Amino acid sequence: MSSGPELGLATMYRLIKKSGAERVSDDAADELQKILEDVAEKIAKQAVDLSVHAGRKTVKSEDIRLASKNILKL
Amino acid sequence: MSSGPELGLATMYRLIKKSGAERVSDDAADELQKILEDVAEKIAKQAVDLSVHAGRKTVKSEDIRLASKNILKL
Repeated sequence: MSSGPELGLATMYRLIKKSGAERVSDDAADELQKILEDVAEKIAKQAVDLSVHAGRKTVKSEDIRLASKNILKL
Repeated sequence: MSSGPELGLATMYRLIKKSGAERVSDDAADELQKILEDVAEKIAKQAVDLSVHAGRKTVKSEDIRLASKNILKL
């Protein structure tokens, strides 16, 4: 199922820089990439389950929203 | 500080498709994009604070890791 990272490393650097970092280690960008990919996959998988549960074949924003609540402390 | 989304919509579609979705609404991809951008920004900002707290100018993977623990239920 996984075929390499979907999110780019350059994007990760930029995101950390934008948040006020003076310097960003390569490892830090790698780590953020891994974590975001993991979060995205967990939300997406749960959203698919929720759409099936609701008798739909289409994943909708409400599925993504509910799935994210179970994964984020936000 | 924010200057448009860093994560692409096509990537969001692909991530949800890869998780087993038959169909994905436009709203769902939008929603996942918004959520991931928000998570990334929150983790990055907290990681910057943690690096400063540790007396460093460089954000390291350990900062990202600790910051993510405060934001994710994973």
